[in-house]
Amino acid sequence: MQNLIKHIEWKDGVLYVLNQIKLPAVTEYNPKTTIEAVFYAIREMELRGAPLIGIAAGYGMYIGIKDLQDMSHDEFIAKMRLQGKFLAESRPTAVNLFWAIDRMIAKADTLRDKSVAEKKRLLEQEAILIHEEDRAINRSIGENLLTLLKDGMTILTHCNAGILATGYYGTATSPIYLAKERGWNLKVYADETRPYLQGARLTSYELHASGIDVTLICDNMAGVVMSQGKIDAVITGTDRVAANGDVANKIGTMSVAILANYFKIPVYIAAPTPTIDMNTPTGNDIPIEERSPREVTHWYGHQIAPEGVKVYNPSFDVTPHELIAAIVTEKGVVTPPFDVNLRKLFA
Amino acid sequence: MQNLIKHIEWKDGVLYVLNQIKLPAVTEYNPKTTIEAVFYAIREMELRGAPLIGIAAGYGMYIGIKDLQDMSHDEFIAKMRLQGKFLAESRPTAVNLFWAIDRMIAKADTLRDKSVAEKKRLLEQEAILIHEEDRAINRSIGENLLTLLKDGMTILTHCNAGILATGYYGTATSPIYLAKERGWNLKVYADETRPYLQGARLTSYELHASGIDVTLICDNMAGVVMSQGKIDAVITGTDRVAANGDVANKIGTMSVAILANYFKIPVYIAAPTPTIDMNTPTGNDIPIEERSPREVTHWYGHQIAPEGVKVYNPSFDVTPHELIAAIVTEKGVVTPPFDVNLRKLFA
Repeated sequence: MQNLIKHIEWKDGVLYVLNQIKLPAVTEYNPKTTIEAVFYAIREMELRGAPLIGIAAGYGMYIGIKDLQDMSHDEFIAKMRLQGKFLAESRPTAVNLFWAIDRMIAKADTLRDKSVAEKKRLLEQEAILIHEEDRAINRSIGENLLTLLKDGMTILTHCNAGILATGYYGTATSPIYLAKERGWNLKVYADETRPYLQGARLTSYELHASGIDVTLICDNMAGVVMSQGKIDAVITGTDRVAANGDVANKIGTMSVAILANYFKIPVYIAAPTPTIDMNTPTGNDIPIEERSPREVTHWYGHQIAPEGVKVYNPSFDVTPHELIAAIVTEKGVVTPPFDVNLRKLFA
Repeated sequence: MQNLIKHIEWKDGVLYVLNQIKLPAVTEYNPKTTIEAVFYAIREMELRGAPLIGIAAGYGMYIGIKDLQDMSHDEFIAKMRLQGKFLAESRPTAVNLFWAIDRMIAKADTLRDKSVAEKKRLLEQEAILIHEEDRAINRSIGENLLTLLKDGMTILTHCNAGILATGYYGTATSPIYLAKERGWNLKVYADETRPYLQGARLTSYELHASGIDVTLICDNMAGVVMSQGKIDAVITGTDRVAANGDVANKIGTMSVAILANYFKIPVYIAAPTPTIDMNTPTGNDIPIEERSPREVTHWYGHQIAPEGVKVYNPSFDVTPHELIAAIVTEKGVVTPPFDVNLRKLFA
């Protein structure tokens, strides 16, 4: 697909990263040739999104050991652990980061009898595999979502569960890119997603750059476009799905779901199975992070609210399962009753 | 009430105006001593809000003739018409502006037999009267809204139907300031109101400066604070009420009303009777203005969306009457069925 943006690319031992900090105004690719460069790319959010961070960490772990000379297996593993400890400090709450680092170390640990050259070759393959697996998940979620959509439909999405957060087509956006591959004509409305504007800066960027018909709106305009009959389905990603189907996602998702239900528009949640937490009974058990008031009161250094005013800035909300038409995973489409059908998915 | 902000003041023939362009970061009062100064204050939006523009125009018309020397009545009226024509160019779509200008000219026209000195004295009184009448409307709407509220409640409001848009306590905010006079403890959540941020820049400013307990949120957080049981009532202003009770107001109002209904929170609309248009049968007959994409894609010159992306930026939406618990005017509280009860109000 010629229009799909390149946002992470592995080529001849170099990781090329689209610098998301400079989006949407500037499109800049930076080559990463050292683990330190990967560390800073993650820490400074040159790339972000849980799956994408995991993928970068896998490549970073390989880059960190690719110039090692002959040494004992124990020395090799000790080097990898040191690199992993360093890289893990880049985003101390990113679960996919630790998961990818641990996976690379665990892989190395299975290679005791191999030469260092062979170890390096197989670890590069492992990093590529982490990326490939995410691609496959993206594609499967997209294919499954497409079974719920038709050519000519218009989708509303919130925040960024797209290419820029993953290794390939994203989760919520995946059916949109797949539809384009097939020659379907899907249109998209993207909520800007205050306060951090992932919808404006990232989602509308990647869809527009990929040649998708996307219209940017402020969050408070979602209801109006629904009322005008313009929206056929809402699709968002998720940070965590509880066992009863309650869905935690970027602040504003719940409101979009309530509006969609009012206008009888189905709400679909794109959820890779690792985001479904059967140990969390309901949405009430999901803690809601609050972020800095400054995200709301200031814009690029410009003060937009009075000095000292109180601010409430929750980062996520929880959409009650009764507002959701389907939770779509790489393993299939899950419909209500979610408590029963999510359990079946993992059986 | 010592904390009430002074935003427009008439003193010794000078109009003092709080410069709303510089809010919320800077509080600056500018004296206006010529009609040209009033013209630029309106045109550059140093003051805005339909009632406030009307009040400034009244004072402006007086300022424009206050230094006239003895002349015939016809000459005097001709001067006034010339001033009015000039001042009307400041905001060519502001109905209250034309209304106030016409009222001042009409008043002058009744004073044929008076001396120029006496004409000027009575025209200053007329300008003050326009302001006084708006104060009285603000206060009556506030008193009527207070009958629907109780001490200790928390109000959510959208956009700015406050002091900064009117001559006194605002319309939607009036009960909040009146409650403070009475020693009640009302709390407020203010939606920031993208794209133009009237909630962040104006509503949270005026409430905070007046010592009201106000919390600023992004528009997409209104649903969450409602879901947490924090909101007892939604109160907004309106630009136009149709004969069936449908309410046009700042973009996002309809979504707030749908969310409030989902959480069984009453929605009250503060509506001076001139905003009720019995010649507009329903909300479908109210045209929705679209504004520049740049309001959504740029912030203080900073680009937040990709070059060339499509934008939909409606300025208003229409809240269907069935989502509204009461339309509160200076003449009383109107409850459903609105088609019947609004007609009674004007009978």
